[in-house]
Amino acid sequence: MSTVFDWIDGRLEQRRRAGLHRTPRVRRADDDALDLAGNDYLGLTRHPQVVRGAVRAAREWGTGSTGSRLVTGSTQLHRDLEERLAGFCGAESALVFSSGYTANLAATNALTGSDTLIVSDRHNHASLIDGCRLSRAEVRIVPHRDVAAVHEVLSGHDGPALVVTESVFSVDGDTAPLRALHQACREHGAALLVDDAHGLGTTGPRGAGALHAAGLAHEPDVVVTATLSKSLGSQGGAVLGPHRVIQHLTQTARTFIFDTGLAPSCAGAALAALDVLRAEPERAEAVRNTASALHDGLASSGLPVRRPGGAVLSLPADSPEHAVAWAARCRDEGVVVGCFRPPSVPDSSSRLRLTSRADLTHQDVTRAVKVIAAVR
Amino acid sequence: MSTVFDWIDGRLEQRRRAGLHRTPRVRRADDDALDLAGNDYLGLTRHPQVVRGAVRAAREWGTGSTGSRLVTGSTQLHRDLEERLAGFCGAESALVFSSGYTANLAATNALTGSDTLIVSDRHNHASLIDGCRLSRAEVRIVPHRDVAAVHEVLSGHDGPALVVTESVFSVDGDTAPLRALHQACREHGAALLVDDAHGLGTTGPRGAGALHAAGLAHEPDVVVTATLSKSLGSQGGAVLGPHRVIQHLTQTARTFIFDTGLAPSCAGAALAALDVLRAEPERAEAVRNTASALHDGLASSGLPVRRPGGAVLSLPADSPEHAVAWAARCRDEGVVVGCFRPPSVPDSSSRLRLTSRADLTHQDVTRAVKVIAAVR
Repeated sequence: MSTVFDWIDGRLEQRRRAGLHRTPRVRRADDDALDLAGNDYLGLTRHPQVVRGAVRAAREWGTGSTGSRLVTGSTQLHRDLEERLAGFCGAESALVFSSGYTANLAATNALTGSDTLIVSDRHNHASLIDGCRLSRAEVRIVPHRDVAAVHEVLSGHDGPALVVTESVFSVDGDTAPLRALHQACREHGAALLVDDAHGLGTTGPRGAGALHAAGLAHEPDVVVTATLSKSLGSQGGAVLGPHRVIQHLTQTARTFIFDTGLAPSCAGAALAALDVLRAEPERAEAVRNTASALHDGLASSGLPVRRPGGAVLSLPADSPEHAVAWAARCRDEGVVVGCFRPPSVPDSSSRLRLTSRADLTHQDVTRAVKVIAAVR
Repeated sequence: MSTVFDWIDGRLEQRRRAGLHRTPRVRRADDDALDLAGNDYLGLTRHPQVVRGAVRAAREWGTGSTGSRLVTGSTQLHRDLEERLAGFCGAESALVFSSGYTANLAATNALTGSDTLIVSDRHNHASLIDGCRLSRAEVRIVPHRDVAAVHEVLSGHDGPALVVTESVFSVDGDTAPLRALHQACREHGAALLVDDAHGLGTTGPRGAGALHAAGLAHEPDVVVTATLSKSLGSQGGAVLGPHRVIQHLTQTARTFIFDTGLAPSCAGAALAALDVLRAEPERAEAVRNTASALHDGLASSGLPVRRPGGAVLSLPADSPEHAVAWAARCRDEGVVVGCFRPPSVPDSSSRLRLTSRADLTHQDVTRAVKVIAAVR
């Protein structure tokens, strides 16, 4: 018997003792719990038109894209999605990936070289952090949402630079000062890369995203990444930006060249979701209004909650164990909330993460607030 | 006007001059070319049962998994797929990812630490290379398929080690000496990580993969990665191995924790593909026989082609420009072949990459060979 992986047993035991062991909860199709944990912000994953989009694509194009986008994996459906997504967000061009994770790896790497300085917000998502680590660039981490620090770091650097941030931060739901960051980039000749995963569909006019809202969607020095798996109810990621940047990614991004293209059903679902959002732009407002209502209710109950910039809210817990117990008690009462512990938090503190959804009712919000406050 | 991305124009021009510019060919749904470029080895992406699996899953579960597998993204469908895939390949346990790329990043990182030595075959896939680069381990590249070199490197190292290889190499289709590599790992107390992306469905009894064929699928020191996007006609990736390794990945793999779970339609398609392969195990033999027939035909035509270990064959070209022109002439005759140039090749030499498929007819093979040889 090989003992090669014996070390894993000790690690698993350590995590259990520290209250950090995770057991994925397996959802059933008939699960009727009130979901305040998922990222289906616009309530589109079960929308009949979106489901039809996936079904039609699977029937017309098959269930897989059959290869890298550069070999056989580019279909007219991918091209349509890219054009429609760019148009919707106000960007010049777009490129679709199999996940938001691989889109972030692509953007951070294709836009930097060994002489580039990356300036990265301390709360950035794991995929941006991994992208920075994979790049050959020098990486400087700046305090969260600290424009002065960005200025300072850029001032001390002579050469190409890329400032990297999320628009709506994934764990706490607070927002980046995009216009001020762009101003800093302009002053110092740096490029700005913004991950709008949690902004697309929940911010901006008609849900066109945080860059559109900030008037930056079409700037020649701004590149945006997004996911198809949150507001668009599907799977996949995208990079949006100037045409030449997208051309360059097509030529050089390893997660574009060496990954199988997005499945047609996912592209079809995302296209249909864009249709729904164009026809029902009020969904973007509904998700924000519901998030505000959640915030107001929780604040009235005396819970320390920050006003959300998009659909995400966060509530501090006393410890990992407390977060787990709190979330479990919510679950027992039929309310599913996110339980975020290290390493899934940007600092070392555990919290509940709540998400709003366009299709939550007033009753849903009232019930959720009551349960979350009562079982704290 | 910002000049931040002006450098890209120069790079694009350089690539054009070097014959390395890529323009993805956009497929149409009614494209009737003979495809010898895709990775749909078993011809399942348009199989009615597989399409029905995707359709049923989208209708029952929605078009997206709604979140990280650790939050709301784990459904009974994901669990079923993991159990069925592990059973099919003879592994103890399995974990499904949104792509094969992210599965490889996960395995290389979760199984190594800063004191680990990674021994990596020089022809390994970009996702394995990126995984090694992301890890904090020391990485030693060994010559292609060189077991003696692996022995030598492992002999000089005191501490944990991971030997990383593909089973069937993705560009040239040659195979790794898996049993000898495992023997070397055993001798030196190292673990073995094998990417079976191109082996699953095309090698082993009933297509159960290269590890099953080598009698290594259930070994306690072997971990396997695979894709759902090739033989299984879908999208996604998987890691297979001892239960504790899978448990450990669930706890620590960043591309599992921080990525949205695989879309239900993709999980449903892969499950249906496993059903088809169980019912029609002859598909695995058909893809190999067809690959042999392609080889024999090309060799008889005087082309320097290596006997394939799975479904992949490769033909050397004189230059990047020659590879592009050769592939274009094949395309003009209705035969689609892969055109691989730097950086998509493990050495600096360009080639055509051909793939076999279980549903190619004798006439298809004859026609393909004739065209490829005639227009060289």
